[in-house]
Amino acid sequence: MLNQGTIIAKATGAGSSAISLFRLSGNDAIRIVSKCFHPKSEKKLADQKSHTVHLGTLHDQGSPLDEVLVSIFKAPHSYTGENVVEISCHGSNFIQEEVLRLFISIGAQPAKPGEFTLRAFLNKKIDLIQAEAVADLIVTESRAAHEVAINQMRGGYTEEISKLRQKLLDFASLITLELDFAEEDVAFADRTALKDLLGSLQSKIKSLLDSFYYGSVIKKGVPVAIVGKPNAGKSSLLNALLNEDRAIVSSIPGTTRDTIEDTLTISGIEFRFIDTAGLRKTNDRIEAVGVAKAKEKVYLAKVMIYLFDTNDTSLSEIKSAIKEFKREDLIVVLVENKIDLIQKAGESSLTKVLKEQSSQIPTHAFCSISTFNPQSIEELKNTLYNQIKKITAQGDIVVSNVRHYEALQNALGAIIEIGEGLENKLTGDLLSIHINEAIHFLGEISGEISNDELLGNIFSKFCIGK
Amino acid sequence: MLNQGTIIAKATGAGSSAISLFRLSGNDAIRIVSKCFHPKSEKKLADQKSHTVHLGTLHDQGSPLDEVLVSIFKAPHSYTGENVVEISCHGSNFIQEEVLRLFISIGAQPAKPGEFTLRAFLNKKIDLIQAEAVADLIVTESRAAHEVAINQMRGGYTEEISKLRQKLLDFASLITLELDFAEEDVAFADRTALKDLLGSLQSKIKSLLDSFYYGSVIKKGVPVAIVGKPNAGKSSLLNALLNEDRAIVSSIPGTTRDTIEDTLTISGIEFRFIDTAGLRKTNDRIEAVGVAKAKEKVYLAKVMIYLFDTNDTSLSEIKSAIKEFKREDLIVVLVENKIDLIQKAGESSLTKVLKEQSSQIPTHAFCSISTFNPQSIEELKNTLYNQIKKITAQGDIVVSNVRHYEALQNALGAIIEIGEGLENKLTGDLLSIHINEAIHFLGEISGEISNDELLGNIFSKFCIGK
Repeated sequence: MLNQGTIIAKATGAGSSAISLFRLSGNDAIRIVSKCFHPKSEKKLADQKSHTVHLGTLHDQGSPLDEVLVSIFKAPHSYTGENVVEISCHGSNFIQEEVLRLFISIGAQPAKPGEFTLRAFLNKKIDLIQAEAVADLIVTESRAAHEVAINQMRGGYTEEISKLRQKLLDFASLITLELDFAEEDVAFADRTALKDLLGSLQSKIKSLLDSFYYGSVIKKGVPVAIVGKPNAGKSSLLNALLNEDRAIVSSIPGTTRDTIEDTLTISGIEFRFIDTAGLRKTNDRIEAVGVAKAKEKVYLAKVMIYLFDTNDTSLSEIKSAIKEFKREDLIVVLVENKIDLIQKAGESSLTKVLKEQSSQIPTHAFCSISTFNPQSIEELKNTLYNQIKKITAQGDIVVSNVRHYEALQNALGAIIEIGEGLENKLTGDLLSIHINEAIHFLGEISGEISNDELLGNIFSKFCIGK
Repeated sequence: MLNQGTIIAKATGAGSSAISLFRLSGNDAIRIVSKCFHPKSEKKLADQKSHTVHLGTLHDQGSPLDEVLVSIFKAPHSYTGENVVEISCHGSNFIQEEVLRLFISIGAQPAKPGEFTLRAFLNKKIDLIQAEAVADLIVTESRAAHEVAINQMRGGYTEEISKLRQKLLDFASLITLELDFAEEDVAFADRTALKDLLGSLQSKIKSLLDSFYYGSVIKKGVPVAIVGKPNAGKSSLLNALLNEDRAIVSSIPGTTRDTIEDTLTISGIEFRFIDTAGLRKTNDRIEAVGVAKAKEKVYLAKVMIYLFDTNDTSLSEIKSAIKEFKREDLIVVLVENKIDLIQKAGESSLTKVLKEQSSQIPTHAFCSISTFNPQSIEELKNTLYNQIKKITAQGDIVVSNVRHYEALQNALGAIIEIGEGLENKLTGDLLSIHINEAIHFLGEISGEISNDELLGNIFSKFCIGK
């Protein structure tokens, strides 16, 4: 997997700019740069200390190409664990092309996507969780997604997974010991301790799995379905929500029926608002067809805003509608609209009833709004934000990577099988099959277990230069 | 002019990337960065040596924003001459926005276009010629333009101008001395030495002025007008020229009549091919209207390719056409086309005649081509390249900046006036007016003389971050 040569890539953004940065990594990095870099100082680059910066000129066949700053990082004290040289040159397109061409002509190889981070992983500077977090970090656009990525990059649940795995490893070696002494029928491995260990493993893994739903919505945006009767004011609500932050709104085109209307970032969390067809009413009963269509969309959502016109809706209608859509992992926000049209001053009778009976209606939050009142819209945004924030508050460790989620599920499966094996008094050799399975899946997450295919898959999705 | 605060800007390209680089400059740069940077090492950033790199974490209100590398450069050993800190962080759009916001919140100011280079100039790290070369360097796209910019950035004609100016300054002080002793009627300043100095100044400035035509065509591309009768094969030639390097060809749209057809880079020099209307023939005389129109375009060109169909053109026709367009600073390349259609084997009789009479025809080069023969097109390209290269070979120092050109012209004017004053035996006080003028204009070029308006004009054209 590891190409032993010295690689080079541009690490900074496209186009011409004040400065652009190239990075080389490999045993020969300093030697190769010395071939064409003429430092201002007398001292040779190779004799300089690690983590120092040097002004000088890049020369291409005798003529000066650019004045540059060269930073050197000596193995193992670098990002990749190899010798690393960073060259910061002027950012014209011409210079950028020439620098790359020059270094390839004197022995460097163009880096493949993610090759710097792959080397960091193979040289054990970081584990796979951290490597994948680096890729996430570069593409995240919202604060919440950024926080998940940076936590993972800084260690995140690496240690947690490692500890769990180490305990299983310890146990596995005891079981192996038993097998060596199989004829003597001794049990080195304390079955009760294993049972306790399995219990704590199960609860840890379950909580990590639970965090995935949050992790993935944070990474991709929180889907919010807006549901309501045609005259409830859905479109006005959507406009009111988006108008507030027009600058950070983006339109995602799609089919007419299933369009994700727009995204909006509220206090660092991205929300994707999904339009649903208005629910039609026939004889006070919500028509089945409308519900089915809306249900499809609500199924994809993490949050449902049930919007109703307070001047035109009965409590039983609301109750039955929410009942239709209710789902264990769906956050329901009940939103009373058009409070500006309420005839009498003060709360509408419906508002009062709703507040009194709130315990009977399975909603997570209740808001009264008028789309003409910006403050009420702000309150709704806060409500949405707080509902999502509540889930995060359950734990700092958030799994946001599908690969990790699947490995955790597999590990959980194996652990459940170990537990069943214990119940059924399976022998050590049979137990150890499942124990090794669980060890394998946990090891896959942090990369203690890896193979070329897995690594190829992960790093090919990186950008070049990382 | 100099804002005393600490400035910050992103120095690298747009969009998300592996790394992006921020630069701070100012007395407080290290102090401000220390507020939010937590280094891995124990030592404080301010206590670290200049030109060292430090790994650590940027913190924003207690929470980690990113893991970064911080390079410090202590005044005066930095680009700007002030304390400079470079921060290389992960390149997500989110991080880029947050880093800028964070530093502005703790005391840095967003840098104006070119403000880093302006500070370098005001702190006498570089002169104005070098500062302007930095801006050129970032936007150049061809090798030749790059060479002109890098030579200027590395000192170029700074020293030459300074020496000339110093000699005038020395002379001016002698004249001043004379004025102090005016009543005694002595002449400290040797008029013959001044005459010699004026002679060498004139020839130096003239050669710098001469280089400007080359400098400006190199910077903007060499304009080549293709002239010929409608059936000469102009369009085929243009296509043949461009097809060879389709990848580095760009179409510049414009009006039908005055379109610059296309650009092509030959061995690092950019050529802009300008189409001219075919010249119509009436009774063997080139029609006046056609010539007038073509002349307009040839007037803008540095090179004229006069293209003719060798099977359909007489020597007198060629002679009279070239005579029409001849200009002292125009390079005329005579191109014989359709040599594949010559009936007899070997050279056409016209080719022979042209070669024999070449001394009588005022052209700089002669080529025989067939647009179906790629090798002959390559030879034409080499001819074009060599003609331009010849002009460069006249001197390494190339003026490419209109501002410098104008100042040189003004200085030359003043020097001529000093010479005339000497002839007319003007008194010291009258001579010194013109001497001071010349000193002023030469000083303007390198920035020894400058004012806020001039500097504002120059640096506002820079990009932010430079």
